[in-house]
Amino acid sequence: MNDDAPSAANTRTPEIEFWFDFGSNYSYLSVMRIEALAAARGVRIRWRPFLLGPVFRQLGFDNSPFVLQKEKGAYVWKDMERQCRKYGIALTRPTTFPRAALLAMRVALLGAQREWMGAYCRKIMQLNFADDRDIGSADVVSEALDALGLPAQRIIADAQSDANKLHLREQTATAAAKGIFGAPTFFVADEMFWGNDRLDDALEYCDSIATRG
Amino acid sequence: MNDDAPSAANTRTPEIEFWFDFGSNYSYLSVMRIEALAAARGVRIRWRPFLLGPVFRQLGFDNSPFVLQKEKGAYVWKDMERQCRKYGIALTRPTTFPRAALLAMRVALLGAQREWMGAYCRKIMQLNFADDRDIGSADVVSEALDALGLPAQRIIADAQSDANKLHLREQTATAAAKGIFGAPTFFVADEMFWGNDRLDDALEYCDSIATRG
Repeated sequence: MNDDAPSAANTRTPEIEFWFDFGSNYSYLSVMRIEALAAARGVRIRWRPFLLGPVFRQLGFDNSPFVLQKEKGAYVWKDMERQCRKYGIALTRPTTFPRAALLAMRVALLGAQREWMGAYCRKIMQLNFADDRDIGSADVVSEALDALGLPAQRIIADAQSDANKLHLREQTATAAAKGIFGAPTFFVADEMFWGNDRLDDALEYCDSIATRG
Repeated sequence: MNDDAPSAANTRTPEIEFWFDFGSNYSYLSVMRIEALAAARGVRIRWRPFLLGPVFRQLGFDNSPFVLQKEKGAYVWKDMERQCRKYGIALTRPTTFPRAALLAMRVALLGAQREWMGAYCRKIMQLNFADDRDIGSADVVSEALDALGLPAQRIIADAQSDANKLHLREQTATAAAKGIFGAPTFFVADEMFWGNDRLDDALEYCDSIATRG
């Protein structure tokens, strides 16, 4: 099944593309919120994990703006505290930020159309942003899959196949080609919405399209 | 009257500091919204015009990030269209962005505690972001003051006094010292909120303080 091709269902069910990276703190908020919000509106999620690092580098930044800009970085963690409190989401500032999580991202790509995707993404995000665990390590990814009752060893082997590695590079190139410059980013049809702050607007826009159609 | 010193009223009436620049597009949204929202919650506004350009330069940027980052810049105007539609605010993308508006800012500083401040700020913002007029010109500032029935010539002369010019430089230095890195920025007590997207949260925080107090 090719997740780049629109399926027949797409013409009926409104859809939101969700572009995210496990290292991104504002992606954390959206990962924790999106499934319930989308379900409440009958919107289908197309999970689109991509690597934010290469996109930043292509734009000329060698790290997260929250690291490169000291003032903004200081603010962001206060903002995160308040946002997490508002949404009832746990937060421990990770001792490493941003955390690279290549294997976890490859597993996410593999799981993008599996029924365990939402639970897996929330688990990885909680390990990073609530438990301050190193989601870059294979042990932690394995632990996350185990906790969900999934065959960790097989999934990790599949995630590390050449085809899946290539797919993640391609998906990251697609992100850049679509004009994505940060995460989370949402697309509804051709309309781009940047940031967890626009998740509700993006879902609202799904409704407006569905009503028109 | 020194607007840096807390007044006796501060201990009773919740207050929001509103730091903004007329050239900033997201400040436009907040200028158009803040008076009604604050009034509805019984919150007093402390208007804090400051020059965003020198703050950006101090942070190492020689222009707005929306100009320096092409992808973000392209996105921001789509976002502005949607946000303005949501709030029912007119928008014409200014042919010059960001517009320097030194005289208009000096007048704002002078008017910060006058009853005409909100109407004046909305008028200047509308001239910039709805009518695409050059708010950097003295004629346009004068026209804005005239339209409000204010003595334009006298106000402009006062705004250009050495004391007021110095005050704006000082206020801008204060902004940088407070860790401000963009506009609009709000402070409620020591809590900083960045962006029009946080105006409601900042006002909500005023309420929570008032309730505690």
